[in-house]
Amino acid sequence: MDKKYVIGVDLGGTKICTALVKLDGSVVKEYTIPTEAYKGEEVVLNKILSTIDKVIEEIDINEVQSIGIGSPGPLDIEKGLIVYTPNLPFKNFNIVKPIVDRYKIDTYLDNDANVATLGEFLFGAGKGSKNMVFITVSTGIGGGAIINGRLFRGSTSNALEIGHATVMKGGPRCGCGNTGCSEAVASGTAITKRAKEAVESKVETSLKNYEEVTTKEVFLEAERGDRVAKDILNEALSYLGITVTNMANIFDPDKIIIGGGVSQAGQIVFDKIEEEMSRRCLRTIYDNCKVEKALLGGKAGVLGAAALAILENK
Amino acid sequence: MDKKYVIGVDLGGTKICTALVKLDGSVVKEYTIPTEAYKGEEVVLNKILSTIDKVIEEIDINEVQSIGIGSPGPLDIEKGLIVYTPNLPFKNFNIVKPIVDRYKIDTYLDNDANVATLGEFLFGAGKGSKNMVFITVSTGIGGGAIINGRLFRGSTSNALEIGHATVMKGGPRCGCGNTGCSEAVASGTAITKRAKEAVESKVETSLKNYEEVTTKEVFLEAERGDRVAKDILNEALSYLGITVTNMANIFDPDKIIIGGGVSQAGQIVFDKIEEEMSRRCLRTIYDNCKVEKALLGGKAGVLGAAALAILENK
Repeated sequence: MDKKYVIGVDLGGTKICTALVKLDGSVVKEYTIPTEAYKGEEVVLNKILSTIDKVIEEIDINEVQSIGIGSPGPLDIEKGLIVYTPNLPFKNFNIVKPIVDRYKIDTYLDNDANVATLGEFLFGAGKGSKNMVFITVSTGIGGGAIINGRLFRGSTSNALEIGHATVMKGGPRCGCGNTGCSEAVASGTAITKRAKEAVESKVETSLKNYEEVTTKEVFLEAERGDRVAKDILNEALSYLGITVTNMANIFDPDKIIIGGGVSQAGQIVFDKIEEEMSRRCLRTIYDNCKVEKALLGGKAGVLGAAALAILENK
Repeated sequence: MDKKYVIGVDLGGTKICTALVKLDGSVVKEYTIPTEAYKGEEVVLNKILSTIDKVIEEIDINEVQSIGIGSPGPLDIEKGLIVYTPNLPFKNFNIVKPIVDRYKIDTYLDNDANVATLGEFLFGAGKGSKNMVFITVSTGIGGGAIINGRLFRGSTSNALEIGHATVMKGGPRCGCGNTGCSEAVASGTAITKRAKEAVESKVETSLKNYEEVTTKEVFLEAERGDRVAKDILNEALSYLGITVTNMANIFDPDKIIIGGGVSQAGQIVFDKIEEEMSRRCLRTIYDNCKVEKALLGGKAGVLGAAALAILENK
């Protein structure tokens, strides 16, 4: 039977979002339920299966080519295992097998960053590129790379740990234990951390003593002219620009796609990236490489999982 | 006829070195002549042809599978052009065509860094690896990457400009115009520049007021206990370690191979790299990734060109 669809499963700590997607990326039916991770492996697995059941209700299952699952890692992609992840109940749990057993459809697993990379490559801002780097900037910094049209995973499936490349020797401590990682100086978390430090140090700033200073508020106060907020953003976004430029000089890609919450914070993000790119990127690479905002937004997870299903099934 | 050989041509500003190489990397015959670049395009081209004539004197040319040429860039690899290079007379010169016309043998061109990468991958320290990064540290810093067993060139053939990734925001000016590039803080040139600055500033150091302070002398004086020399090396090699670690966190390779003059300067180079790797590399990547010294040394150019001939001809 003609294979018209794939299924994308975006497995998250808060919710499971599953969609029936046409091969051109258009979503036919989407279904989201809370994960309720505390209920354990079996319950969450059954929830996943129920979302798949739901999106195929009105079609013939033989029209589904393949299923893709995006999950937080670390994973063992080859074996279909979720090794461990803080916000899900699965420990060394084979998430692929029960799905294949039930639906007899080829099923693929990959981590969030890779899946988002594939989504932007196939359906989003990276469409048509040959070499593409995807960088997601939110609480952390992560990414993926498409090399000669294929996802690059590295030898232990951990390639593109962009957030843990050192950009500031002697810089602040990162969650990974190292110091001066791009994630420690240029992520949303880094921005709010600097803002809280500023508020606590009683310097003159319009940043309020919020319970939790948010990245959004730092962008807002910077726009209103607060010097401390502007300083914090300048520093963080300049390091983000360096991170982006380093990826350009190393991968020589057609496109670098920036996604994640911080990429949505305003034109200043892209202006600062351009400032560092034009200063630091080798000319031939710079002339060829476009830096663009990710297009899939909230649909990155589910469309990325669908892209995984399509591309891995070739 | 059985193809037993390839020919590797290492085209440099000072000398042309050409070798007849068996498919296992053993050199059967080698011939080196001065380039004498000032004599112009035709003369240098004829010199290249004469070195090829020389190494095939005693064999049947039909036993040669292919020819590889390593040249300084920028090149147009697809078209076989040397676009421009300061130490050679060629300008937009097709170096491949006259060789193919004369010998009727498939001929391939690539830049020094890529060719050295292929050489270490096929015949040297990178043998058997799947994902490998090669970093050469001498007057400059350059490199190449093998991804899933194939050379990665990037979209404009400029990938792996490792020497121009920023590792020190606000750092010293690089030859490329940017500031804080790894080449500006961690190359042999960076080390001698810091040493000359120290000598000129009249600080107490056993670094002599040499006409030209060399990298070798800095390593020697550091070993003898000179604090200034030790400081200079510590700083430079720490940034080299950061550069290597960033490549590990980004490429997640099996191996990182370090070549070039600085890699020969002593165990301290690899000790400092290990120090930064153990501090800054993500654990799963670190446990899998070996950092090793390049093995081909002075033969990197000619064996790399032979590796290009073998791998491109598949």
